[in-house]
Amino acid sequence: MNFIEKIEEIRKISREAKQKSLKVGFVPTMGALHEGHLSLIRKAKSLCDVVIVSIFVNPKQFAPHEDFNNYPRTLENDIKISIENGADFIFYPNALEIYPVGHSTSIKVNNISEGFEGEFRPHFFEGVATVCSKLFLIVEPNLVVFGQKDYQQCLMINQLIKDLHLDIEFIMEPTIREADGLAMSSRNKYLTEEDRKKSSILFLAMEEAKKAISKGEKNRKTINAIMHKKLREVPEIKIDYASIALAEDLTQPEIFLKGDKVVLLLAVFLNRIRLIDNSIIII
Amino acid sequence: MNFIEKIEEIRKISREAKQKSLKVGFVPTMGALHEGHLSLIRKAKSLCDVVIVSIFVNPKQFAPHEDFNNYPRTLENDIKISIENGADFIFYPNALEIYPVGHSTSIKVNNISEGFEGEFRPHFFEGVATVCSKLFLIVEPNLVVFGQKDYQQCLMINQLIKDLHLDIEFIMEPTIREADGLAMSSRNKYLTEEDRKKSSILFLAMEEAKKAISKGEKNRKTINAIMHKKLREVPEIKIDYASIALAEDLTQPEIFLKGDKVVLLLAVFLNRIRLIDNSIIII
Repeated sequence: MNFIEKIEEIRKISREAKQKSLKVGFVPTMGALHEGHLSLIRKAKSLCDVVIVSIFVNPKQFAPHEDFNNYPRTLENDIKISIENGADFIFYPNALEIYPVGHSTSIKVNNISEGFEGEFRPHFFEGVATVCSKLFLIVEPNLVVFGQKDYQQCLMINQLIKDLHLDIEFIMEPTIREADGLAMSSRNKYLTEEDRKKSSILFLAMEEAKKAISKGEKNRKTINAIMHKKLREVPEIKIDYASIALAEDLTQPEIFLKGDKVVLLLAVFLNRIRLIDNSIIII
Repeated sequence: MNFIEKIEEIRKISREAKQKSLKVGFVPTMGALHEGHLSLIRKAKSLCDVVIVSIFVNPKQFAPHEDFNNYPRTLENDIKISIENGADFIFYPNALEIYPVGHSTSIKVNNISEGFEGEFRPHFFEGVATVCSKLFLIVEPNLVVFGQKDYQQCLMINQLIKDLHLDIEFIMEPTIREADGLAMSSRNKYLTEEDRKKSSILFLAMEEAKKAISKGEKNRKTINAIMHKKLREVPEIKIDYASIALAEDLTQPEIFLKGDKVVLLLAVFLNRIRLIDNSIIII
């Protein structure tokens, strides 16, 4: 009875809660939940009375060559651990519920979506913006929680909420990491045992950059080169990007200034598995 | 006190009405109101308790060479006649209220936006879809009323409402015409006296097509040719399109079938003034 498949039903639950002046929190996911997601659910529960978690592997944010069909699906366990961590309702619509025949609207947040992930996965953010808009308008939450692991996505969703005049509070929660620094991700389970060991290189590359910055380095290209050099210690790595940018809008000045809030952004393939990570610091 | 410039204020009015179980109707306009708009306002009033009319000349739906700066603006009279015809509140935001600095989201309804107006005014529908989504999410009406004069726009808005899961009833009201058949439009006042007389040719071209259809004509190209021939009786006319299509989705089969609901769609320049019109009939 906490498992809802229909739009009208989840909307009714949310509206009834809000009519009782209960605060509704929402955590949209693609399932394959790990400790990172659970921290978002717990955060939502700490701030809201009713927490709705959606599990929807959104076909529109995968390119044809990407891993939509193989994206891990672990529904039974997802439900169990969501509820253990504070979810009150699981919204699990099928694709036709979200994209009925004739569906033809797409939503794009320009500027912030254009570099980094937007460059390497050109349809990704339009798919994310469209499905998140739709889920927000279905669930009508007071608050949403997203993970910093997808930092550029967080910036985009925050802008989207403003631009659509949605009455939704946006919360970004820190990335949860394995003991060796690897950011938790549903895709980590694809890694071979050997590659899993090598994958902490993303974290180590950011640590190298931070060390240089703490010693006074402010030159963008130098900082990027430090991360690239570290990543190349693992020959199986192919770098999409490893760059420092201003945290606010991802612009990339040549020289950063003391006090700048910046983000280190990394995306690499380790053999066939794509890994991303980021870290925010003050220069 | 019925004149509202701020998003938060109009939203509060709408929400308070809905909390009292009053039905809120919404008529978005670009001002320069004429009898066509007034019929939409009266329709909204006949179906709703509270009617909100927005007046916002949306910069995003004009191309740089189009008539944004010269679009007629007649605010004082617009307010007066809106209220006389049933409007309870006028929402008159400025451009920065709707598009604050940093605004970067755009909404596109594919397929239905692609031919006809979409072909000749490539940015038009994206601008309309974006601003209407924003206005709907600000005003949160139960019902919206649009005019059939912009038939393709009606189809698009109807699809947009479905795709965004908005809880809004969509109403399309018939076109209001001058005595000689010219569809009312804010742009008609640009016509010289002489061109005003010639402008009934759009209506006459549709009448010619209807006559042929009533005699059994079902061939698309033949029907289009009848409209083109009639329009060419006015040498100052430059035709963007004059076409018959299925009313449901604007597809264009070679041969129509008895019982098909079709629309005759026209867009022309008469000297420098662009005029559109349409008519729905059953074959």
